Amino acid sequence: MFQRVNIGNHFDLKTSVFQAPRRGIYSFSFHVVKVYNRQTIQVNLMQNDYPVISAFAGDQDVTREAASNGVLLMVEREDRVYLKLERGTLMGGWKYSTFSGFLVFPL
Amino acid sequence: MFQRVNIGNHFDLKTSVFQAPRRGIYSFSFHVVKVYNRQTIQVNLMQNDYPVISAFAGDQDVTREAASNGVLLMVEREDRVYLKLERGTLMGGWKYSTFSGFLVFPL
Amino acid sequence: MFQRVNIGNHFDLKTSVFQAPRRGIYSFSFHVVKVYNRQTIQVNLMQNDYPVISAFAGDQDVTREAASNGVLLMVEREDRVYLKLERGTLMGGWKYSTFSGFLVFPL
Repeated sequence: MFQRVNIGNHFDLKTSVFQAPRRGIYSFSFHVVKVYNRQTIQVNLMQNDYPVISAFAGDQDVTREAASNGVLLMVEREDRVYLKLERGTLMGGWKYSTFSGFLVFPL
Repeated sequence: MFQRVNIGNHFDLKTSVFQAPRRGIYSFSFHVVKVYNRQTIQVNLMQNDYPVISAFAGDQDVTREAASNGVLLMVEREDRVYLKLERGTLMGGWKYSTFSGFLVFPL
Repeated sequence: MFQRVNIGNHFDLKTSVFQAPRRGIYSFSFHVVKVYNRQTIQVNLMQNDYPVISAFAGDQDVTREAASNGVLLMVEREDRVYLKLERGTLMGGWKYSTFSGFLVFPL
């Protein structure tokens, strides 16, 4: 999973979980790339233990395809936000995939 | 259509139209998911009555596919911004689809 | 390439290169649309001369498909950020494609 910017260290690199430092509206987006794999994948963006939005990549061709989505979320302090591969497998791991989030404004 | 955050109530839930509370640069993005449908869909992001950007989903396989795009827009006060399904039909409705926007900075 | 908003004129319309006016965290996203073309394309987001993230569109059907991705980047003053078509060709040019960026917060 591509991760370069981590201001405040609220994204845990080991678990890939973002934990909100404060209450507010956050923008999250992700692009999860499926490589050489005929399976359909479903990726959920999770807030605590609940799925908020889903994205799918189901092309049967042998190629790279992304499951992408994005959302504005009302997040409470210490909420955890992370991606979950709900269906399918990522044969090539999370290479080329990105997950981004930032605070749009505090509440 | 997924809609959870609506600070200021500038997004009309009945019509799915966002009306800008003030002049500024806004970021908009959308992911419209086509489910089990061989048609090509075209989704336009409309500002007032004009299409600004388009996205397409045309895969012939029986699967879920998203028409996604995003843009920064200069928006005048009371401009209306909304999605329009220009071509094709969404057999499963707007399930899984998202439409997000926020003010990047005021002008 | 769709380009409507250019506050500060830091995006060079001739070269399609964004040059950062100041140090900070920027959000960049792009959607590059492939039209009627069976080739696989790879689009890289470049920071100075290095690829940061990639996106792919490889569907073999005769249709429109987008290579999309987005990322938060730590950018130094005068860094150049731009898109590069790493593989394949865009027969229809950059029509329907978008490239957006904005400063999330200064550092």
